[in-house]
Amino acid sequence: MLELLSEHGCCGGVQRFYRHASSAIGLPMRFSVFLPPQALARPEQRLPALFYLAGLTCTEETFMIKAGAQRFAAEHGLILVAPDTSPRDTGIAGEAEAWDFGVGAGFYLDATQAPWSQYWRMESYVTEELFGLVTTALPADPRRVGVFGHSMGGHGALVLAQRHPARFRSVSAFAPIAAPTRCPWGHKALGRYLGDDRATWEQYDASALMARQAAAPFPRGILVDQGLADKFLAEQLYPEALEAACAAVGQPLTLRRHASYDHGYYFISTFIEDHIRHHAAQL
Amino acid sequence: MLELLSEHGCCGGVQRFYRHASSAIGLPMRFSVFLPPQALARPEQRLPALFYLAGLTCTEETFMIKAGAQRFAAEHGLILVAPDTSPRDTGIAGEAEAWDFGVGAGFYLDATQAPWSQYWRMESYVTEELFGLVTTALPADPRRVGVFGHSMGGHGALVLAQRHPARFRSVSAFAPIAAPTRCPWGHKALGRYLGDDRATWEQYDASALMARQAAAPFPRGILVDQGLADKFLAEQLYPEALEAACAAVGQPLTLRRHASYDHGYYFISTFIEDHIRHHAAQL
Repeated sequence: MLELLSEHGCCGGVQRFYRHASSAIGLPMRFSVFLPPQALARPEQRLPALFYLAGLTCTEETFMIKAGAQRFAAEHGLILVAPDTSPRDTGIAGEAEAWDFGVGAGFYLDATQAPWSQYWRMESYVTEELFGLVTTALPADPRRVGVFGHSMGGHGALVLAQRHPARFRSVSAFAPIAAPTRCPWGHKALGRYLGDDRATWEQYDASALMARQAAAPFPRGILVDQGLADKFLAEQLYPEALEAACAAVGQPLTLRRHASYDHGYYFISTFIEDHIRHHAAQL
Repeated sequence: MLELLSEHGCCGGVQRFYRHASSAIGLPMRFSVFLPPQALARPEQRLPALFYLAGLTCTEETFMIKAGAQRFAAEHGLILVAPDTSPRDTGIAGEAEAWDFGVGAGFYLDATQAPWSQYWRMESYVTEELFGLVTTALPADPRRVGVFGHSMGGHGALVLAQRHPARFRSVSAFAPIAAPTRCPWGHKALGRYLGDDRATWEQYDASALMARQAAAPFPRGILVDQGLADKFLAEQLYPEALEAACAAVGQPLTLRRHASYDHGYYFISTFIEDHIRHHAAQL
């Protein structure tokens, strides 16, 4: 079922890349897993796991190569899981024409509009199929799973955590697209994947979802880091919308704004340790 | 003189990428620099620096993206410097035909054989021109510079440290090509860059150079890490040749062999902290 593509010793544990025939997507999908030393020492033991959702143009490799997270996951005994960012090689015309839509830009939702609805079902893929795989074929404890991500993946983490509270116990994000109903990336993706009904879009807007919560969904707090030299901040990200929504519903939010940091992985690798600690403490 | 291509906040310091017209090479060259927070806090202060020489096919970006070294360089107040691995776009026919020769495969030597001798002068580039740049245009202390590298770059580090003892005060390597006169990569590169005279080849063989030292050139010790799941170990690397040569001349060598680790950056990122500490202690 799971095809092991490669395996690398890393920080006392093992870094793996898998491919599998995805039933949710209807095509082969790839994902990466870091198993910490604790998983090798006691294979029968269930460990907490942390899903990382990557940003536009990334793959299942990006985070594992660039973020330097394994060292801290090894310290805390956390499994790391990173899916690809969309279906690939679907045969749909124009799937790879844009870097912010289609291939590499799944936005962690289930598309309802043709032709994308045939394969673009990243929400079901991540929250059902991949969640099931890592908690059955791999030793992740289904009751101790967190989610975080970057940019489009920060949007994915904040949205999936709210839409699937039984799945995810902790959430954080790096430079998330925090209010996609307000920004060009979101307008393009939500419009083409979900159609014109803006009420539907709000189901995939982290800030809009938060504003409608009856009570704080993550009472132990959400962590968000944002660089102030991020060229996408003003037009695309809207952390202030999430901040306002969290304040309105009493959701504890640590939103840290960092001078001199941009949108890339040098920013992520700088603050990754804090995010791993945030999740380890809640899982 | 130095063109700043990009700059990224990282670990409290700054990650930079530069291009410049290289007089040693005769073409534009790129390199990367990490300046730790200490360099930003006190710009007038000279800091120790550590040159990283990358392996076959890599660029000046590889180490900075994949190794996770900046966090530890920031802790110890070390500047990191990484050159590209060869000249590029030289116009020499066949320069990019092979992945282990020509572009991406400079082997940190000055070629003597046409057509390569026109541009392939990586030894002069690294030890003279780049060394000069980072100790004048950047705040590196010329008396406190170390060198390390991976694979072809591990060869480069061990060879340049021995050939230029006034330049480099500390040395270490990940999975170095430790005896290029004995392996296919070395035969190909040394033969085509330096010609058929094997006496010349030995000037670029770390183990042969070490065997001829009158006394230990690095009395405070050399650190080498080698993975035992490294697919290049048996045919290309020969750490045992370096081990024997160091033993013969009384050169302290810590050669650590690690089960389950391969030749890639998951291996390097696992042990990078130890290498940064090794150099910081000697610089």
